[in-house]
This record gives sequence, C-alpha cells and structure tokens, in this order.
Amino acid sequence: MGLGKNFVQKRNITITQLDERKDSTQNTANHEQNPPDRERIVILGSGWAGFTLARTLDAQKYQPVIISPRSYFAFTPLLASTAVGTLEFRTALEPVRSRRTKVDFFQGWADDINFKNKTITIEEAVDDPRQGVALTTDRHAGKTPAQREVEKKLDAEKGKLFHLSYDKLVVTVGCYSQTFGTPGVKEHAFFLKDVGDARRIRNRILACFEGAALPSASDEMRRQLLNFAIVGGGPTGIEFSAELHDLINEDMKRLYPELVGFCKITVYDVAEKVLPMFDQKLAGYAMRKFRREGIAIKTSHHVEALRPGAPSERERSGDAGDWHLYTLKVKEEGEIGVGMCVWSTGLMQNPFVSNALSTIHEAPSNLEHTNNPGPPPTSTQQQKWHIKKDSKSGAILTDAHLRIKLTSAPPSPSPSQPETQTQTQPPSTEATHPTLFALGDCSKIESTSHPATAQVASQKALYLAKRLNQQTHTTSPFHYHDLGTLAYIGNQNALFQGQWGARLQGYVAWVVWRTAYLSRTVGLRNKVLVLVYWGVNWVFGRDVSRF
Amino acid sequence: MGLGKNFVQKRNITITQLDERKDSTQNTANHEQNPPDRERIVILGSGWAGFTLARTLDAQKYQPVIISPRSYFAFTPLLASTAVGTLEFRTALEPVRSRRTKVDFFQGWADDINFKNKTITIEEAVDDPRQGVALTTDRHAGKTPAQREVEKKLDAEKGKLFHLSYDKLVVTVGCYSQTFGTPGVKEHAFFLKDVGDARRIRNRILACFEGAALPSASDEMRRQLLNFAIVGGGPTGIEFSAELHDLINEDMKRLYPELVGFCKITVYDVAEKVLPMFDQKLAGYAMRKFRREGIAIKTSHHVEALRPGAPSERERSGDAGDWHLYTLKVKEEGEIGVGMCVWSTGLMQNPFVSNALSTIHEAPSNLEHTNNPGPPPTSTQQQKWHIKKDSKSGAILTDAHLRIKLTSAPPSPSPSQPETQTQTQPPSTEATHPTLFALGDCSKIESTSHPATAQVASQKALYLAKRLNQQTHTTSPFHYHDLGTLAYIGNQNALFQGQWGARLQGYVAWVVWRTAYLSRTVGLRNKVLVLVYWGVNWVFGRDVSRF
Repeated sequence: MGLGKNFVQKRNITITQLDERKDSTQNTANHEQNPPDRERIVILGSGWAGFTLARTLDAQKYQPVIISPRSYFAFTPLLASTAVGTLEFRTALEPVRSRRTKVDFFQGWADDINFKNKTITIEEAVDDPRQGVALTTDRHAGKTPAQREVEKKLDAEKGKLFHLSYDKLVVTVGCYSQTFGTPGVKEHAFFLKDVGDARRIRNRILACFEGAALPSASDEMRRQLLNFAIVGGGPTGIEFSAELHDLINEDMKRLYPELVGFCKITVYDVAEKVLPMFDQKLAGYAMRKFRREGIAIKTSHHVEALRPGAPSERERSGDAGDWHLYTLKVKEEGEIGVGMCVWSTGLMQNPFVSNALSTIHEAPSNLEHTNNPGPPPTSTQQQKWHIKKDSKSGAILTDAHLRIKLTSAPPSPSPSQPETQTQTQPPSTEATHPTLFALGDCSKIESTSHPATAQVASQKALYLAKRLNQQTHTTSPFHYHDLGTLAYIGNQNALFQGQWGARLQGYVAWVVWRTAYLSRTVGLRNKVLVLVYWGVNWVFGRDVSRF
Repeated sequence: MGLGKNFVQKRNITITQLDERKDSTQNTANHEQNPPDRERIVILGSGWAGFTLARTLDAQKYQPVIISPRSYFAFTPLLASTAVGTLEFRTALEPVRSRRTKVDFFQGWADDINFKNKTITIEEAVDDPRQGVALTTDRHAGKTPAQREVEKKLDAEKGKLFHLSYDKLVVTVGCYSQTFGTPGVKEHAFFLKDVGDARRIRNRILACFEGAALPSASDEMRRQLLNFAIVGGGPTGIEFSAELHDLINEDMKRLYPELVGFCKITVYDVAEKVLPMFDQKLAGYAMRKFRREGIAIKTSHHVEALRPGAPSERERSGDAGDWHLYTLKVKEEGEIGVGMCVWSTGLMQNPFVSNALSTIHEAPSNLEHTNNPGPPPTSTQQQKWHIKKDSKSGAILTDAHLRIKLTSAPPSPSPSQPETQTQTQPPSTEATHPTLFALGDCSKIESTSHPATAQVASQKALYLAKRLNQQTHTTSPFHYHDLGTLAYIGNQNALFQGQWGARLQGYVAWVVWRTAYLSRTVGLRNKVLVLVYWGVNWVFGRDVSRF
C-alpha cells in the first residue's frame, strides 16, 4: 500500500485533514457542533444495516462516514410498488446526506482494507452506471491481480482511488443477486433489488404494452410480449407478481382494453412450494388466490436460459416483429416467448467479502481470544489471521456482539459441511477483532440462522449503535425479535405471520402491511408522499408515462 | 409506396380493420360508445398543439389518433422545476393514453406521407432511446435515400414500419434544438426540452456535487466542477438558472456546506440583452436581482465549442481528477472548465418538415385556390404541388384557418429575403389543402409573427378543434390572444408582462406564476401532486437521491 502514502502526499489530503478542511470553510454549522476529535466510524454500505447504524450513532461521540456506490438508502419493501407505479420511485428512497442527520458520505466502492494502518481504499463511483441496479458480477471480474494493480495505480493518480482512515470499521456491503450461472440471465433478466431495477421494470412493462398495441404486431407476438415471467417464488417474486396483476387489472385494462386478453403472469420456482417462510395454511391461501386471478405458479420448474429474440419455432416460421421479445428456456416446457423475465432467486456473496476480506495480515495487539483460555501465544502479532467465514454461504462470521471473528486456520478450500469442519480439523486459534464489525446480509452471527432480511439487518444496526453509543463492551449479546413476516398478494390482500401462532390473511393483513411499512418508512417527507400517492393513484389510477 | 400495400396485405391489418380489431375483443366499453364510421384525424406529435387538439376533438364525430415517439405530453413550463427537484418529473407529464380521453395512440415517428392514398408511414419507436430527450439531428442523418429505401423495406418486413390511413392529417411535430453547429454541443451539452433532459440535468448537478465532495478533488477541480454554464438567455435558460440558484442556496448549502463557496452560475448569450420578450424595465429588474445573487450574465459572448475533459491549461499541469469535467470555449474568455453546460438557444426546423413535407405529388380535386380568381386550370390535378414554407425558418405556412398552403412554385434554393421573394418571382398558383393542417412550432400562419410558444400552439389547437367539431368551413380566422408572458427569476420572484402595459415583478408575480401554471396543468392528478410537492419540498427540502 505504498500507493496510499504517495497519493495522499501528492494530493495533499492526508486523512486527518478531512475534518480540518471542513472547518476551514464557511457554513460548517452542522459540523462545528461536533467535537473535532470524535472517533471516525467508517461504514461500508448504505442499506438497511449501514444506513440505520449511521443515523443512530451519537454524533457527539462519533463521526459516521458512509462509503457506498449509491447516494441513498432504498426502502426495499416498497420497491415492488414503485416498479408498477403504485408509488413514485423516490418515495422508497432516503438520501444518505440529509439536513437532519450528521452523516458524512463518499460515493465509492470499498476496494481494499489495510487493517494494520486502519485505512480503506475507495474507488470513486460518482458516475458509475451500476449505481442503483442489482449487482450480479464482480466489477473487476476477468482482470488478473497484476492488471488490477496497474489499473489501481493509474486510478490513484487520476484521483479515482483514494484512502480513508478509520477508527472503527463496519462492513455492511450486502449481497449480490444470485443467478446460479444461468446463461443470459445476468444480461437480459430484470432484477428487483434497487430503485434502478424498479425503473427498468416499470419502463419495460409499459414498452411491452405499447409494442403490443402497434398495428403491425400479430396476435402471437402480442401473446408473447404480454407474457410476464417471474423466476423465484420468494416474497419479492410473489409481491411483484401481485403488484403487476393489480396494474394490469386496475389500469391497463382501461387503457388497452383490446390487449388485456393477451396478458399472462407466470411464477417459476425450482422448489416444490413458494413463499417458504409462511406456513402451509397462509401459503395455500395465497396460491388459491393467485389461481383464481389467473397468475400461474409453476413449482418444480427449472429455468435453463434466457436470451433476446423470439422462440426458435417462430423464428423458423419467418414471422415478423420479434425485435421486442425474450425467450425463456424452461426444462419442463421448452422455449417460451416472454416480454420480460423478472429474476428473484436469492442472494450471492459480495465479491468484496471474498476478495478484500480474507487475510487481515497483521492483527492488533488487543484481540480478544475466544477459544484458548490460557495466555495468548507470544507470536500473536506475527501470526497471520484470516476472517472467519461461513463455509456454506461465505458470509463473514461475527460473535454475538457483531465483532468480526478471526481464525488462524486458512479458509478451507472446499466449502462443504460447515458444522463438522471444526471437529475434524485440528483446533485453531480464534479471536474477535475489537474494531471490526459486520452486519446485514454479508454477515452472520456464528451458529445462528437469522434470515437475510431487512428486519435482522436493522435490528443489528440498532443494537450496535446502542452498544457503541454507550461505549461499553459489556452489553448483552444481540438478540433477534421476530416482528412477523408480511407479504402483499394483490387486490388489497396480504399475509401476516407473527410469533405465537399469530396469523392474518386477506384485507386485514393488507391494512397491517400498509400500516407497518408506512410507519417504518424513514423520513416524514416520505411518509407524507407515500400516503399522497396511495390516495392519488387510488383515485386517478397509476401514471403510465414512460421516459 | 408499393411497399405499403404489400406490407398491409402480408400483416393482415388493412387500415380500416383497426376499428374492427378493437370491436372484436373484450372490454371495448370506451370505444363502443363511439360510432364506428367516424372520420379518423391523425395527429403527428404529442406536444402543446397535438395533445390539446386530440383531447378537445369531439369523439362522437372523430377518431383522434396521435403518432408520437413519446407516450406523454410534457408540461414544459414546469420542466426547469423538475430539473432541480422542486417538482417530481411525472408532475410535468400527462400520458397520451388516459382513462378519460378517447385518444388512440401509436408510439412512432412519422416517416413519410402519401398524400394521394392518404396514408402515413410510421416507424415504431417503442424502445427508442431518444424518446424523452431534446432532438438535435435527423435520426437518419448520413444515410443516402437509396440506403434508407433498403432499410425501410427491411423494417417493414420486421413490422417496424407500418402505414396508417387518415381522413384528416394534422402536423404538430414541433422543432428540434438549435445548436448552430457549435462543435461538441450536440454530444456533450445538456438540453431542457423534455423530461428526459430534466432528469439528465438533475442527476448531473448532484453528480457534480458528489464528485466535488470526494477527498481526492482539488480546490481547482471543485471550482470547475461546480461551475455551471447556461448558454442562451431566453426564458428557459433564465428560469433554469434561477431554479439552480434556489437549489444551491436552499438545499446544497446545508448538505454540502464546505462546497457552496465553490459554486458559480453563468448565463452566456450572443445578444446584447437577455429575456428579449420582456421590456427594458422588467428585464433590468431581473438582471439586478441576478447580479445581487451572484449569477453572472455575460451578454455579447460567443460560445465556440464544448468538449469533455479539463481545460488544456490544467491538462498541461498534469493535475489529476479531470475525468468529470467539460471545457467550454468562449471567444471572449478562452477555455473554461465547467461541470455542466445547459444549452438553450432556440429552435431548429424538424427534419421531417424539410424531408417528407416538400412535394405532395398529386393534390386532391377540392383544393381551395387562393390567388387565381378565375376557374382553376384544367391541369390542376396533374400539376405538381409543393408545401409552402417560410423561406427564413422553413416553417410550414398555413392560412388563417391553419390549413397547409400549397404552391406550384418549387421552393427557392436560397432561403433569404422571404418578404421580397414573391414580388420578384413570377406569380405562381397557390392553394390551401382542405384536409391537411399544421400548428405548433413547426408551422406559421402566413404573414403573421406569432412567437413559438405553448400559448400560441394551444390556442391554435383549441381553435382547430372547435372548427372541426362544428364541421363548418366558415368560422372566423384564428386570432391570437396574448395572455401575457411569465418568467421565474428565483427566490420567490417572477416577472409578468401582459397586454395594455400590465407589468408585475417580484413576489406578487411569483404568486401569479404559480397560480397560472397550476391552473394550466392538465389533469387534476397533477394539480394535486404539484401542490403536494411544492408544500413537501418547502417544508423538508428537495430530494437529492440520484439514480
């Protein structure tokens, strides 16, 4: 990391000068209230974990700095609604920079960490076209480490790469979208993980209808263009299908009366049932409702590929007008022409976690050793430490206080049998890092199985903020309070499954759904706007302008 | 146009079958109310003229069909507000398809007209990336007529090109943005003519601030990145400068306190004064206000080029961080590094008007001859007719009933001295076409000089709708009622100049500005949303999420 020092000298912005720079300019009212010698907590990511933590940290004690490729937090439960126009996109967003919070922000990708010097290398992402859309591949995939080193040197000279020091580091980088390597999916599927995805979907739905409305479209073409496939029967896939059905049923039916007969929605899943987080009764209720409304649920179906263009059967017939279509290849059904394929089959580990967060070179002297009750070996500081990861998912493992776990054993090459591994290998030295934390989907408390949900991420963030604000190490370990699971299933119906057998379905559950998410929406601004849009769109219908 | 018939037969959609197709499907409630033998009025364009006309035509008598590359009407006076986030983008849009109006719509570009068969060739634009942004060049520029013919044949086979018959045709295709051939402007400037432009500007402003906030940005870089140039001192340029100043002063100052000192806004104009449509007193008031607030107005300045990258002076110094900048070359000042250049220097004739609308081959027998009082020559129908155009601007000339004027004289090769031309050339036969109309910025009533404004376009549309709805040819000619001119100049100040010396400036004019545009906003949905956003953004500040 000689690069770092050189760069910092050249650009004349040593890390500690960040605060000074601010103090030397006008209008620093916000910042001057805070003591200048606060500990800097660098948070990687602006999702549920990172954003919640940054907002909750005591600005008198800490200087929270978010590093994220996107300048906002996305309120994910409302994304499906924005994708069909029930809500406007921005109602699901909160900017990281805000008048009310005192969070510093740099728009960039965390690239590397120097654990010894406590600095993080950041690649700026101000004009990055990937901000706001689901990620499926490492942005530096295909480059050798040597190529990447050369590129980094150049980027540092251009000011595209810079370093930032931290006192504490919190990793909340989240996950990428899982495509299981299915050919064509990364390139041609529509995801629903961020607001850019929601916009792409909204525009695509409207384009499908507009294309089908052209006088030159054949009925066959119309049928395929208005065939919407959703792959993945989890809550995202199901909620989106329901919202899409609402859009077609409530708005498109009136705007394109001659086309609504061609519309079809199909949910594909490899598993035997959808909505696995709900019990049999609730999931069954949703399925019956979907069947009544004509949404096809095809479980135990395997999607094998996705490509642009019409199915080859039609191509052979020489029929025209295929330029808008995609073809989905399903093992059980063959080739199917679709207007859009929405892909929502779960999460994949963030490449940053596997690349940057593997070896931590040299550990600090104040590591807390966990599994060797005797005095730490004298060689601790020279010892090579690895970040302990879940051998199945690759998630960072933490202790119950969300501190990252270290192990002296190198990561096992074959990621299998996570539970038996520690028994068969010789016991290795383990420790927790006192100033490194991980929460959100990229991490896991060792030997727990909390789901990868917004609820878990934000509860962990609140727990960590409280613990850091109290500046004590003796708080009780993190405990997850399951507040229940909600899913919208269309036509003012929802499912709710809480603790102690609490179950709701139908209209009442929908009222709970709306109330819960309205109350969870972060800012008052968006609470007002969400209410306004629910009202306005209920009265006037959804907006179908496309730009 | 043999292409047309062939295509129509192959695709099995003769033009008259359009209605039948609709009637044969379900849910045609809207359409079944209307008699099936209505005259079809095809309207090219969905701007002020076309959209207003389509909404106002009597659906019992006519079947209005809009052909436009964009699926909405843009309420242009509010675009500058949406470009800085005072309003959300969609509040300035009305979808062409609506539950309440009975307008048919095909998303496409008018490509050619067959005046004899009364059909129009349409190039579909469902996935066209140019929808929603200012146009600066012919989309088929650089292709020879022969190449284009081949391309059209292929497109017709693919269903990308199709024909539509009309009973009456109304040309409201509007204008393109004028760049005077200034190098680099088409490629790198930001325009403000449509909502896609507004979104690009909004994202760009926020990117400039985020880029300047990076710790690797030098102060010199910050100064250039936050230097915003507006070229053109007409109402669009001035209103945008004012809105941008509001954004910086009201929101960015609080969100980026350390950066606001680097911000600069400069308006360039070749003319000696800006806001030429306002009288000296009002324009002077605006100038003094701008000067007080630090917005520089540089009149008699000539912008010569725009390119990406930093000014060459800095390039030579080897300074880093230039990847975000643009360089503006001004004759009077040399090279200037800017974060964004907004270009708003007026209008250029639509290439469709010069290409498709030149010769009309064969005219109908019921032409109304205007300048030869005797009986029409027997050769009229064999005579070659040309659409009469303004020799200076190239605009389509109409009579006072908005019917397109035809002339037997070929268009003069040198477009100069429009007024004297008819005197020096031998008198030619002239006529008005009974079923061809033109309004909006692409046209002009002969020997009038109405400005190219939304007011003129919508008044002409209302006039024509009334005339057509009454189905009489004897209505009085079009008369323009100037309702006054408004311009927002920032910080809750505006200018108003009406007839009979009515003048307002300052806060009262701003109340008039807001009231006028709120009342002119087309739909009730947007009236509600505009009010809500004015309120919400006043209380909470503008949203700075960027995606």
